[in-house]
Amino acid sequence: MELNPVIEMLGRKLRLAIIGGGPGSFIGGVHRMAARMDNRYDLVTGVFSSDPLRSRRAAQAYGVEPQRACSDVTEMLDAESGRPDGADVVAIMTPNDTHHTYATAALDHGLDVICDKPLANTLEEARQLYNRVRQSGLVFCLTHNYTGYPMVRQARAMVEAGDLGHIRMLQVEYVQGGKARPLQREPGAALPWRFDPSRGGPSVVMGDIGSHAHNLLRYITGLEVAQVAAEMGHIVPDRDIDDYAGALLRLSNGARGSFWVTQAAAGVENCLKIRVCGSAGTLEWWQEFPQRLTFRPLDGRVQTCTPNGPGSLPLSRRACRIVSGHPEGFPEAFANLYSDAAEAIAARRSAAQPDPLALTFPTALDGLKGVEFVEAARQSSQSNGAWVALS
Amino acid sequence: MELNPVIEMLGRKLRLAIIGGGPGSFIGGVHRMAARMDNRYDLVTGVFSSDPLRSRRAAQAYGVEPQRACSDVTEMLDAESGRPDGADVVAIMTPNDTHHTYATAALDHGLDVICDKPLANTLEEARQLYNRVRQSGLVFCLTHNYTGYPMVRQARAMVEAGDLGHIRMLQVEYVQGGKARPLQREPGAALPWRFDPSRGGPSVVMGDIGSHAHNLLRYITGLEVAQVAAEMGHIVPDRDIDDYAGALLRLSNGARGSFWVTQAAAGVENCLKIRVCGSAGTLEWWQEFPQRLTFRPLDGRVQTCTPNGPGSLPLSRRACRIVSGHPEGFPEAFANLYSDAAEAIAARRSAAQPDPLALTFPTALDGLKGVEFVEAARQSSQSNGAWVALS
Amino acid sequence: MELNPVIEMLGRKLRLAIIGGGPGSFIGGVHRMAARMDNRYDLVTGVFSSDPLRSRRAAQAYGVEPQRACSDVTEMLDAESGRPDGADVVAIMTPNDTHHTYATAALDHGLDVICDKPLANTLEEARQLYNRVRQSGLVFCLTHNYTGYPMVRQARAMVEAGDLGHIRMLQVEYVQGGKARPLQREPGAALPWRFDPSRGGPSVVMGDIGSHAHNLLRYITGLEVAQVAAEMGHIVPDRDIDDYAGALLRLSNGARGSFWVTQAAAGVENCLKIRVCGSAGTLEWWQEFPQRLTFRPLDGRVQTCTPNGPGSLPLSRRACRIVSGHPEGFPEAFANLYSDAAEAIAARRSAAQPDPLALTFPTALDGLKGVEFVEAARQSSQSNGAWVALS
Amino acid sequence: MELNPVIEMLGRKLRLAIIGGGPGSFIGGVHRMAARMDNRYDLVTGVFSSDPLRSRRAAQAYGVEPQRACSDVTEMLDAESGRPDGADVVAIMTPNDTHHTYATAALDHGLDVICDKPLANTLEEARQLYNRVRQSGLVFCLTHNYTGYPMVRQARAMVEAGDLGHIRMLQVEYVQGGKARPLQREPGAALPWRFDPSRGGPSVVMGDIGSHAHNLLRYITGLEVAQVAAEMGHIVPDRDIDDYAGALLRLSNGARGSFWVTQAAAGVENCLKIRVCGSAGTLEWWQEFPQRLTFRPLDGRVQTCTPNGPGSLPLSRRACRIVSGHPEGFPEAFANLYSDAAEAIAARRSAAQPDPLALTFPTALDGLKGVEFVEAARQSSQSNGAWVALS
Repeated sequence: MELNPVIEMLGRKLRLAIIGGGPGSFIGGVHRMAARMDNRYDLVTGVFSSDPLRSRRAAQAYGVEPQRACSDVTEMLDAESGRPDGADVVAIMTPNDTHHTYATAALDHGLDVICDKPLANTLEEARQLYNRVRQSGLVFCLTHNYTGYPMVRQARAMVEAGDLGHIRMLQVEYVQGGKARPLQREPGAALPWRFDPSRGGPSVVMGDIGSHAHNLLRYITGLEVAQVAAEMGHIVPDRDIDDYAGALLRLSNGARGSFWVTQAAAGVENCLKIRVCGSAGTLEWWQEFPQRLTFRPLDGRVQTCTPNGPGSLPLSRRACRIVSGHPEGFPEAFANLYSDAAEAIAARRSAAQPDPLALTFPTALDGLKGVEFVEAARQSSQSNGAWVALS
Repeated sequence: MELNPVIEMLGRKLRLAIIGGGPGSFIGGVHRMAARMDNRYDLVTGVFSSDPLRSRRAAQAYGVEPQRACSDVTEMLDAESGRPDGADVVAIMTPNDTHHTYATAALDHGLDVICDKPLANTLEEARQLYNRVRQSGLVFCLTHNYTGYPMVRQARAMVEAGDLGHIRMLQVEYVQGGKARPLQREPGAALPWRFDPSRGGPSVVMGDIGSHAHNLLRYITGLEVAQVAAEMGHIVPDRDIDDYAGALLRLSNGARGSFWVTQAAAGVENCLKIRVCGSAGTLEWWQEFPQRLTFRPLDGRVQTCTPNGPGSLPLSRRACRIVSGHPEGFPEAFANLYSDAAEAIAARRSAAQPDPLALTFPTALDGLKGVEFVEAARQSSQSNGAWVALS
Repeated sequence: MELNPVIEMLGRKLRLAIIGGGPGSFIGGVHRMAARMDNRYDLVTGVFSSDPLRSRRAAQAYGVEPQRACSDVTEMLDAESGRPDGADVVAIMTPNDTHHTYATAALDHGLDVICDKPLANTLEEARQLYNRVRQSGLVFCLTHNYTGYPMVRQARAMVEAGDLGHIRMLQVEYVQGGKARPLQREPGAALPWRFDPSRGGPSVVMGDIGSHAHNLLRYITGLEVAQVAAEMGHIVPDRDIDDYAGALLRLSNGARGSFWVTQAAAGVENCLKIRVCGSAGTLEWWQEFPQRLTFRPLDGRVQTCTPNGPGSLPLSRRACRIVSGHPEGFPEAFANLYSDAAEAIAARRSAAQPDPLALTFPTALDGLKGVEFVEAARQSSQSNGAWVALS
Repeated sequence: MELNPVIEMLGRKLRLAIIGGGPGSFIGGVHRMAARMDNRYDLVTGVFSSDPLRSRRAAQAYGVEPQRACSDVTEMLDAESGRPDGADVVAIMTPNDTHHTYATAALDHGLDVICDKPLANTLEEARQLYNRVRQSGLVFCLTHNYTGYPMVRQARAMVEAGDLGHIRMLQVEYVQGGKARPLQREPGAALPWRFDPSRGGPSVVMGDIGSHAHNLLRYITGLEVAQVAAEMGHIVPDRDIDDYAGALLRLSNGARGSFWVTQAAAGVENCLKIRVCGSAGTLEWWQEFPQRLTFRPLDGRVQTCTPNGPGSLPLSRRACRIVSGHPEGFPEAFANLYSDAAEAIAARRSAAQPDPLALTFPTALDGLKGVEFVEAARQSSQSNGAWVALS
């Protein structure tokens, strides 16, 4: 049984510059692992912290050559642009309010971009960035990483193949416990950025995880949210930020949906779940057991799909590195976005046609849709739960 | 290890009259099993069908003495009232629109009542019946049978014991696939009563299963729904009745909730699920695996509660007949309501004090709350999802 | 959806006499529930305890008419034989060493028998009783109750239908924790009978649960154990009885198997599991979640069978009382043996042909096979694990 | 939340040479991913195939500099020894019969070794290699990769902490379906090496997966197998190699065990399971859901341990890269061995004291124990299942 030939690097590795993700950042380590996983990227430079000393120390630890360690984003982008072996692509993993600025700068330097979600904190910034990406012709990969799981891709492929028939209903929930505990900080210490609306965005729970839930339902079903009736707020008393959001959904094809996200559910780890019901069957997926996709056909026994297992469709199969029964996880799902982006970038550079199956990764358009959804939900929440149409 | 001494009959059995539940009725067989389970009832008479011949045949099959088989409810109640060994209690399992009439008649004859949910199809009838019950001083048990599961009772007891701290959020879903398939009937055949709003009530999905979901969250948390923002409708084109309902909830203590019920989810069997999140931990229960209750404490490892297992609280323990590891199921949960009602009735008759733990079964008040909830949700749904307060 | 028409009583109920199962007996309550479940038996008499006073009190509690309450088995059998409305069938739930005596006495009085497993403590007694049953032409149902679960019957039916192809391997385990704790008893108190080899039999763990595991594999596969290599003993120091037994198996068709049973696994409730592997697929069933049967076809996705769910075969379907998604449990599985036995008895009495699907309940022959297996395993264990052939 | 600081490379990366694992090899890709995962290795050279052309092509694809691509192991080792920047460590992933030769050669060149299991096909080779390693003072890591899972390490740490009390019993099974299908090959084609006993070893199922099962039980419990009674053979007719092995075990502390491995279970993916029962509780772990470890205390509710979840012990915590709820998988577990080995090698080279928690990876001694176990089982199997003591 051969490893998925798509996966492991066969040509020149892409030169990667990183913005953010230094020591203390959970997501920084994940990005770097994802970049290394399939041997398609070389980390060549980075600004890993807004503190110059911390940034340089991190650069050294991560194996960046000393002369390429930077402490300023513009300086880095300029320097790389001037080198024959300059960075090909910039990965951005800074707080939400800076995605727009750094991504625009990278695009302005002609670099492809991999960027953490959400795309931006405001609708205006999101639209600007989306338009900028479109004009540039560059690759922009937004790391809605849950779309990288093989079983999420299998779900999408089964919907596309018509296995569910006409989609009628869906339920999506993303429930975490990370903010169930009152915030504890030293007297005088700054708020963590995620507790500060000016940095974390107008609705932190929506930016953090609601955007994932929204993107996941779009990725699997191919439907858009047409209207939303929502309530957002906080249920733990010590804060000014949203820690839950509930909504009812009307989808673009007339289907109906339920949406529930929170970070204040004591003891819950990372429960992202989706159920999609069609006229011919129902799909269920749960991130904490990502290697199982349940299919309940209208007629016939419940089926369990597994990575590389029987009935795997091509979109799912190419997202697997190992034979069935050997669980891949969150890092591999994340890496699938990096590797798909690498394939898209390589094709763009060589003016070749990429494998269409590589092109399902979320883009700036998906990010814009996400910000629009958050805005519509916020508007509904402020209008006594009235249904609000998305543009 | 001794069987739960509460469970098996120790005194005179109650004489049971049944209205409804003849051949072709799923729930009729369940009621009769529940009545037999703990040896506390003797079925002595019944009107099992509106068709006299079918009714008499059923009576014979179920072991009713021929001279006590009836085909008319009033006739039966009158006859039983005239006998020294007349029925003690009437169990009603007819279509929803008749609960009010039959229950009122039974109460008028001085008989205790066990009645299928929902209490009534209209708010007016529900209020009348609730008041009638209150005036009568008789026992009225509404068979929201899911409250009979040992792990649901354990959940309630844990909430009461403060194991969850302050309750902040909950999610409840009741998803079935029974109406996912377009209705198939012979040309000229009548609609099944559940597809006929005049009999099944203003929102069939809410009467059928939404009322269970609503009652379950109240039973476990002790909270009331204070406000609801909802949408109800049908997603399968061939019908005039609701087949889904979604809602956001504001609970009486300020907690927030999500509510989703449907009978149109292809391939799903009987997925009633609830998650209750408090400041100190989260509980999760799933009817398809009713023997497991998951407790996620804010601090400490996830725990699994099992019937009669370690950490069982008295309310849960008395609902178990067998030692841990030997699954009881839906019939036993249903029987727990019958046996609790028997205990309440026996106490009423002897003017004794019943065990308070026997008195958690749903009553007419719970039924009234359920009808109020359905009405408020309907009003919200017709008002563009506006928040509607419950009286 | 109609209740399974097989299930609920349609003719005269059988008159049941009980030996054993008084207060303090777990299994006694289970037998009585099982007898009541489907309305096919009336408990008319019984000797519920070797203590006459306890026996009479129990009789009263269980609803036996005072004049039929007994304290001696022979007296009871004689009295019932002399009545025109005497007992039809005797259910025996006494300690293992008495099954032979009481069952023989019941057969001698021309009564059908329902008897707890194991059939007997010794091979000699088992053979005598088996022969006595055969000569009598009476019905003898041995309550290996796990064969009553719908999903176990589905497994048997799928094997019979050839869904697994040629059976190659199986694994069965029955792991409990009930004897993990050192025995605690008052000074001078008698040993519980299960800790006394003269009453509980030569290998208590094998009599208690090993016999179930052995019967389960035979019931599902239709194969016999041809040879066994075993070790039996105790791993908790405070006892003289076996608390574990492990074995390798060679089946009658050449298949191979693994067998492991213990009652000393701390914290485990009642983990009876079986996996059967054939050339065309594998089946897995777990008693603690009895409503799921996993089928892993050689080609194709894993399937989950549920009671009354898609793909249910007739043998399974007739063992279900309720629609899919409403879990039945251990009491209903037990009741399936009682109801099958009732059907066999009714057929015998009317010289009618019973439904062949009613005739899968374990009989004296199955009990004899079980005792032979225990004896062969014991012989192997005493011969340094040498393979021992079963007669 | 900071990434585990142990994990990501902070000093010079180790220079890695690889033997085997070219295109077509499943395990080769896994090794390379594992080496990349934590940034601690640079692949500098390798002989990836016995076919020189395939080897050079693979080298290019994997990013080896052309001048360092080799087609002969000795040549490669000699060349690397002569370079100032020569390889530090050799990873071997060739068929089982060559491990001894290549590992010995690497040790002879003073290189640390990472080697696929089993250590060798024969006891004699295993002893030689173990002694050679001991004399060399070099690091030798045997990739029994399942020991790298955080929950397996948590299990070991809980046993060490005494959470289970005295260990009494264990069950281990490793069930796969990869050889359930008759072997299909072109006329005249060579047997795959795993179907050829001269290459795959005396018992392929034991070498492939039995050695993992044996190592897992030793890793978690710290016990040795003292005696074994076994049967090994093949149940699918078309082969000369073992495709199943069953055994009963007596452990070094008197505990008892059950062991079952097969590759002929149709439809099963990769089911490695272990249950360890002690006087104070029971642990259960299942490779297909590696993120859950179930602990059943003698007193108290069942607990579920998760990676980085509440109650994680240090040995487990350092094996996690990401916060709880974000599943890591098989590649990360494999990588944990590579990273632990890197830490041990770095410490050896600098004569520093490594973190003792880094030193649980399997070594040549573990490999020798594994080969001894296979030999003893084979001897028992050939002696009618007699108990055989391990040296």
